[in-house]
Order: sequence, then structure tokens, then C-alpha cells
Amino acid sequence: MNYVNLLNKIREDNPLIHNITNYVTVNDCANVVLAIGASPIMADDILEVEEIVSISSALVINIGTLNQRVINSMLKACKKANQLNIPVILDPVGAGASSLRNNTVKDILSQVKVDVIRGNLSEISFLAGQSVSTKGVDTSEEDEKNNAIDIANLVARKYSCVVGITGIVDIVSDGSKFAKISNGNELLSRVTGTGCMTSALVGSFCGITEDYFIATILGIATMGIAGEIAFEKSGIIGTGSFRSSIIDAISTMNNSKFLERAKIDEAND
Amino acid sequence: MNYVNLLNKIREDNPLIHNITNYVTVNDCANVVLAIGASPIMADDILEVEEIVSISSALVINIGTLNQRVINSMLKACKKANQLNIPVILDPVGAGASSLRNNTVKDILSQVKVDVIRGNLSEISFLAGQSVSTKGVDTSEEDEKNNAIDIANLVARKYSCVVGITGIVDIVSDGSKFAKISNGNELLSRVTGTGCMTSALVGSFCGITEDYFIATILGIATMGIAGEIAFEKSGIIGTGSFRSSIIDAISTMNNSKFLERAKIDEAND
Amino acid sequence: MNYVNLLNKIREDNPLIHNITNYVTVNDCANVVLAIGASPIMADDILEVEEIVSISSALVINIGTLNQRVINSMLKACKKANQLNIPVILDPVGAGASSLRNNTVKDILSQVKVDVIRGNLSEISFLAGQSVSTKGVDTSEEDEKNNAIDIANLVARKYSCVVGITGIVDIVSDGSKFAKISNGNELLSRVTGTGCMTSALVGSFCGITEDYFIATILGIATMGIAGEIAFEKSGIIGTGSFRSSIIDAISTMNNSKFLERAKIDEAND
Repeated sequence: MNYVNLLNKIREDNPLIHNITNYVTVNDCANVVLAIGASPIMADDILEVEEIVSISSALVINIGTLNQRVINSMLKACKKANQLNIPVILDPVGAGASSLRNNTVKDILSQVKVDVIRGNLSEISFLAGQSVSTKGVDTSEEDEKNNAIDIANLVARKYSCVVGITGIVDIVSDGSKFAKISNGNELLSRVTGTGCMTSALVGSFCGITEDYFIATILGIATMGIAGEIAFEKSGIIGTGSFRSSIIDAISTMNNSKFLERAKIDEAND
Repeated sequence: MNYVNLLNKIREDNPLIHNITNYVTVNDCANVVLAIGASPIMADDILEVEEIVSISSALVINIGTLNQRVINSMLKACKKANQLNIPVILDPVGAGASSLRNNTVKDILSQVKVDVIRGNLSEISFLAGQSVSTKGVDTSEEDEKNNAIDIANLVARKYSCVVGITGIVDIVSDGSKFAKISNGNELLSRVTGTGCMTSALVGSFCGITEDYFIATILGIATMGIAGEIAFEKSGIIGTGSFRSSIIDAISTMNNSKFLERAKIDEAND
Repeated sequence: MNYVNLLNKIREDNPLIHNITNYVTVNDCANVVLAIGASPIMADDILEVEEIVSISSALVINIGTLNQRVINSMLKACKKANQLNIPVILDPVGAGASSLRNNTVKDILSQVKVDVIRGNLSEISFLAGQSVSTKGVDTSEEDEKNNAIDIANLVARKYSCVVGITGIVDIVSDGSKFAKISNGNELLSRVTGTGCMTSALVGSFCGITEDYFIATILGIATMGIAGEIAFEKSGIIGTGSFRSSIIDAISTMNNSKFLERAKIDEAND
């Protein structure tokens, strides 16, 4: 595993990560990119996204508060990234919830090569062409995990990319192999933007390695471990302090903390 | 009083709250909705607001950073909410400060049934057709309270809705009865978005009960109590820590904390 | 030095500061304006910016997430501010990085009288017509400081305004005299928006004095001192806590804390 090298490399290389994202969690995404050792740049006007992505090491597309103006910017930025072999990470926030989101995700995936898709089980299931409600369905954790593996593999093959599904258990698949990550804390779901931040972390790691499978594992595991550390520090205090502690934990993450806690099982499909 | 039941019910039902809001305080609004036990969704494009509001339990409209694109989305979302009997909460941020805000508030109130309006005395006074400067006018606290009661009643009757005015004393009126809430701390006015967050809390409670009078009291009292707890914890440290402590206090609010501190006087008009 | 008087005056006068800014750091800017004792208002629609700036004491323009809609609003607001002798503060975030940003900054500076420009060495160098990479160039701190003085003077004369360059050493010039500020902590560069917040502080002080040279020094020094205090309090914990501590330090800043720490050297050119 190259995890340790990559944790050091991101702080040495300080890659610039271009984010076209939503206005709810954009500040947290910028701070998490800084915390892991990369540099964020947010730019979404169609007149500048090509120039900005050209000086960046990765492009993160997040459709959390989509509007028609920005959809064109997203497509233009993605196409430029493809031309320049800059990795594209897609966070299909709320896919399945509206035609605008569904059509935008389909447009991006049909016109552009996406390198990593990171979402929850409901969002990724939509991309698989399956309707899965993650809420109120009485499934066991084991069922959910097996379902997530199948869906991650399916979507990874369909779009020839790496897929990361985050939930009780996190799954990363490149279509032929997959990994399970068992880090995390349930309080992460009570702070807005922890999913968006995870995608921004994945983007940060994609900025320093062409092994996007490893980069996705590393981004997701970093957030899971940070959630555990933050819970130990502030879980009882409340979600305001817990949120600060997530950024604290990422900004002070180092090899020994990561290796001591990481619960990553890689497996062949 | 059903306060206790509603505090439990919101965490059990986990209602989805659709917010069309400003980009200054949107993150705090999302986090406060999560903290009280509901789920936030922010969506403002005209192509998706009808679908999003249709799956939601309440719609919160906040005009804090209004722009022409979003005004049409607000109107469309409100009309759909009316059709589906989904409660609409309006936060007329800065009403009185510009024609754009004034006209937008008037358009919404003339075209749509609003269930709750939550603002400060200056904003609600504008809706009453009165010009009231809350700053630099040498009135006593008693005068301000009596004035707020009159204006809340007037606006509640004019628009057949519940009105919440927050200030030194908070007033909630449905036009025939009113309540005074004496919780709060003055440091709340030194953190941006505490008003917006209060409206988001009111919206969260409107998502689980059709008694919007009680829901508005509960949303406002929750913020007031959270301000008191946060002040005790972080008041001396500064407004950065105080802000985190507000969210902490809301995320850990329970029946005993609420009942121990709530200073709510209900009265007939 | 009038620093002490101005620190008191801002809390007494509570000036309204109009910000047309980016959606990444807008919440922090609002909170920092409140923390220092002023009041923020964010408004960017072309239909209301003239009214809003007319009731404000300063206008802060920040191009961090520029889009074509807002550029026209910026120009209109600036022109109104000029008519009314309201100070205009420009933060040319990312100038040099895209044609959209470069052209917008040039349009503003050619059509409008700007009173203060606050940026980093790379951004201000672009305005000087020089290409300076602040990253990866092996210059000594002494070289950088001398370079910054020259560039600040040049740009201040070119646009007849005050220029503040923030970096390892901060330089403020009005074209005939300059000051060096040696406060700060390197962790400030690992939290997003500390530059934007500094510009918002400068704008806050410009709202209470016509001596924009002093106002710029005071805004920059306040952030530097806050960074030092925050580092002592939360530096080891991580950048999430450090960020809260910055706001804490500004909200509790007083004359004795300021004077005890301020490292300001004024000099004639």
C-alpha cells in the first residue's frame, strides 16, 4: 500500500484542486483541501473554467446546488480536463431526486470521461439504473454492504471509472477489484457536507497519483478516520464542535495516526 | 403544551426541509436543521424546485441575498407547496432596505399563501406598512415589546398567518393569540445568520405539526435557549466559539434542558 | 497613531459594510465584520446594489468566485459609491489566473476610483504589470519584502490609492509613505478566506475614518495579531479550531491586546 507515501506527497506537492461545487458546503470543501495539504480553487464562470482547470491537478464536480448557468461551465471544464489528462471526480449529490440532477449527471457521463464517482448508495444506485431507498428500508448491514459492492462494481464497469460508495461501510471499486473501508462514525451524517468534503479529499489525492483506486480509498478512509478522532474529541459536546474537530483531525493527520486506525480490506472481485 | 412531544417527534420523523436561501448563512442553516433532527435540502433552480418541494415537509424562503434568477424559483416553489399543503415559511431578510426586497416580499405575499413569517421588528414593521427603525431609536424595552405585539398581530391578521418577531423579547402571534418568549442572549446578534437559523428551525418544526403557532414558538425558543447555553459555555471566549456552541446546544437539546429554561408566556389577544 | 481611537470608534459607530464577494468565504467575512464591531450586508443583484451601497459606510469588492452577472453589479455599486464618496476596497483574488479576473480588475480600475487594494504579492504584481510567482521562487524573506515595497508603491501611485500586500511581511503604501507590519502566523495560509477576511476588516475600518492608509494598516494588523493569538490557543489542535479562534480573537480584541502585540513600522518612501 502506498498510502503513507501519498499522505506525505500531498503535503509536499501541494496540488491545486479546481472545484465546481455547491454554495452550501463550499467553505468546508476549501478548508478540507487545505487541511490535507492541497490548495483549493473555486471557479465556475464559463469564461474562466478552462483556464483554471488548465493550471490545476484535478477537477471536482459537485451538483449539490445545481443551476443552469453552472451546468455549462461543468461540461466545459470537464472537456478541457479530459484533453489535458487531468482527473475528473464527480459527486452526484441528490441524483435521483430531480430531473435536472438526473439529466445533468447523464449529460456529464455521456459527454465526458469521469475518473471517479463518489456518492451514497442511493445516488450510485440511480447511476446503476436501480431505484434504492436508503431510508426506511429494513435491511441488515450485511445486506447493505453486499448490495453496495454489486452496485459499485456495476457502475464502475458501466462508466470505466472508480466508484466510491460511502455509508455504514464504504466500498471502492474499479470494476475488477474492490476495497471495503470500515472507518467512520455515524455523527458524520449529522454534519452537512461530509460527503462533499470526502469527494474533495478524493480529488486532492487524485491530484498526486494516477492510481485513482488508491486515491479514492485514501480520501474516503481519511474522512472516516477523521470522523472517529473527532467523535472521541467532541462527540459528546455536539455537532458544532464535532465539525471543527473533523478539520482539526485532517489537518493533523499523519502516517502513524492513519496506519493505526485504517480498516481497509482489499479484495478481488 | 406539546413542546416535549415535538422535540421527540422531529428526531423520529426526520422531515426533509427545502430551503431556498442566501449564500451567506446557508451552511449554518443546513447544520441547524440537522442539529434539531430534520434533514435539509437546498435547491434553487427553477427546473427542479417543484420536484424538490414535492418530496419535502416544509419550504423555507429566505431573501438574504436575493437575485432575479432565484425570485422566480421562489414563487414557483411556493405555489407548488400551496398546492400540496406543504407549509411555507418566509424570512424577509432586509425588507425595507431595497425595492428589490420590498417588491419580492409583496409579490410572494400577494401570489402565495405563506404560513409563517419570521423576522426582526424592522422587517415585520415594513410588512405592516410602518417604518420602524430598530437602531438608534431611544425606546424602552417595554415600549419595544408592546410595539412588537401590535405589529405581530397586525401582520398576522393581514396575511392570515403566524408571525414571529425576534429581538430583545420574541413575539409570536397568529392574529388572535400571541406568546412572548424571553429566552436568548445578546451575543446572538454578533453572529451572522442566527435569524436565518431561527427561521430554519421554525421550518423544521412546521415539518412535523400543522400547529404552526406552536412550531414557531418552539423554533424561536430553541434558538433562544441555545444562545443562553452557548453564552455560558463560550461567551467569554469569543464569537467564533460561541457560534459552534449554538449548534452544539441545539444538537444536544432534550426535553429536560428545554423545559428547565423555556420562558414562554402564552396570552390571548 | 490613532489605532486605539479607531478600535473604540468602530464598536461605537457600528458602520454598515456592503460586501459583493465570493460564496466560498462570505460567511467568514460577515462574521469577521461583526467581530470587529461593524455590520455586514451582502447584496449583489444589479437591481439593489445602488440602494444598498447608499446606506453603507464602505463597499468591499472581492472577485474570488466571479461570474458575469455579478461583474455588472460590482461596477454599478462602485460608481454609486464614488458619487457618494463612500470608500471602495478591492480584493483582486486570483488576479493573473484568468482573463475574466484580469479584465474585470482592469475594468473596475479604469472606470472607478478605488480607495484601497488589498491582495497578495502575486495579485498586486499583476496590477503592476509584473509577473511574480510567489510559489516555488527561491527568494529570501528580505528580497520578498523589498520587492513588495516597490510593487506596493508602484501600484499605489498608478491608481492613486492605498495598497496593502499581505504575506510573510505585510506592506501598506499610499504611494508616498509606507508601513511594514510584522504580525501574523503561517497557519493563516492554511485556512481559506483569511485574505478575504482581512479585506473585510480593512473595509470595516474605512467605514469610520477617511485616513485609508491607517485603516488598511489597522485591518491588516488586526488579522495578523488575531492569527498570533489563535495560534497560541489552537495551533496544535488543528486548522478547524484555529479558524474559530481567529474570530474569537477579533471579537475580543481591545486596545491593550492590540498595542501589546502590534509590530508596525511606518516609514517615508
